[in-house]
Amino acid sequence: MNQDELKKAVGVKSVDFIESNSVIGLGTGSTVYYMIEELGKRYQNGDIKNIVGVATSSRSQKQAESLGIPMKDLNDVDHIDLTIDGADQIDKNFQGIKGGGAAHLLEKMVATNSHKNIWIVDQSKMADELGSFPLPTEVIPFGCEKTFSDLKAENLHPEFRLDENGKRVLTHNKNYVIDLKMGSIKHPHLLADWLDHQVGIVAHGLFLDLVNKVVVGYDDGPKVIECR
Amino acid sequence: MNQDELKKAVGVKSVDFIESNSVIGLGTGSTVYYMIEELGKRYQNGDIKNIVGVATSSRSQKQAESLGIPMKDLNDVDHIDLTIDGADQIDKNFQGIKGGGAAHLLEKMVATNSHKNIWIVDQSKMADELGSFPLPTEVIPFGCEKTFSDLKAENLHPEFRLDENGKRVLTHNKNYVIDLKMGSIKHPHLLADWLDHQVGIVAHGLFLDLVNKVVVGYDDGPKVIECR
Repeated sequence: MNQDELKKAVGVKSVDFIESNSVIGLGTGSTVYYMIEELGKRYQNGDIKNIVGVATSSRSQKQAESLGIPMKDLNDVDHIDLTIDGADQIDKNFQGIKGGGAAHLLEKMVATNSHKNIWIVDQSKMADELGSFPLPTEVIPFGCEKTFSDLKAENLHPEFRLDENGKRVLTHNKNYVIDLKMGSIKHPHLLADWLDHQVGIVAHGLFLDLVNKVVVGYDDGPKVIECR
Repeated sequence: MNQDELKKAVGVKSVDFIESNSVIGLGTGSTVYYMIEELGKRYQNGDIKNIVGVATSSRSQKQAESLGIPMKDLNDVDHIDLTIDGADQIDKNFQGIKGGGAAHLLEKMVATNSHKNIWIVDQSKMADELGSFPLPTEVIPFGCEKTFSDLKAENLHPEFRLDENGKRVLTHNKNYVIDLKMGSIKHPHLLADWLDHQVGIVAHGLFLDLVNKVVVGYDDGPKVIECR
């Protein structure tokens, strides 16, 4: 199977964990696209009934709406039962990096407000340790050159993320993204703690101790791993 | 002296600590207004030469520009030598609360990037412990009702800050302000740490271990206190 087929297989598989009468967080990304597509099918044919979706991006919002899935804003639901999202890298302890799509702040808001989280990935996202995938941060434009210098001084190899025209990428909240290209993250909890305390950094892509189940796409089919 | 005269006296006094050939962070607020006014005078008459100002708000930026003080963005200076700002409350260990003016994120960016910080206040701002002044936080609108619930569950007495028309106040970064009306903050460092880790909170008004000198306006004149 090619990468796209692996993504589709896990996206479809993950919908098995969505129960009727529940509030579902819908992540963002190419694997999640297939999950939402499958959810739309099963909702339309009545296999899954009475659900409400909460999106982490306008892209997922539009896709779900186009399939007739009832959607609400995070502010308008009591709780989220389960969120299904992708991940950019997952280590052997099931700690993750997200934010390749620059939606990590909204994704983290939804994830931390969900009773359960499932990540759906193809096998290329699994790694012994985090860090070969650049760690995204979200920084306020005011003083961002100082924030950049601080990250450089900490030896975290920062790089502003640019779009195809060489302009700095803007997040949903009109902030910049600085990617940390460390290669290897030995102590994700210590790093997350340091980043949490930086004034100019409003979010980072370390999602720690959060995921309950991972569905991984391998050539011989999706495997479901229970994490915590 | 009334409160306004006390503010003016400390604002004027604090300019004594501004040296020629330096980069000065300019805070925000009614006391800072008098400081900038006095700085403008001494700059115009040549007592203070060759300075650059870095503002924490458009209000201070405009005032300083109108007085002919050369201004730069935080991103365009190497460093800040000294920032002079107000504070909403200062405890006996010289820990502070700021953000009554909803500018605390930018103020904290400038403060943490300054070699030295001076706070200028009238005597009413000095307290044994923090907390009788509400502690401002800045929260992203996405999921802010969840953030509010979390703050409430922690018994932090949150209240959205409203403007004169009953609408939620928006910060420079288009976020909301939630004030925490705890009455008493026994452990500011623990609280700051908890707030730093909340996903939906991008800033809070606890300014800890930051200020080097406080100029306090008393009826018998401004007193300068060395803090750290």
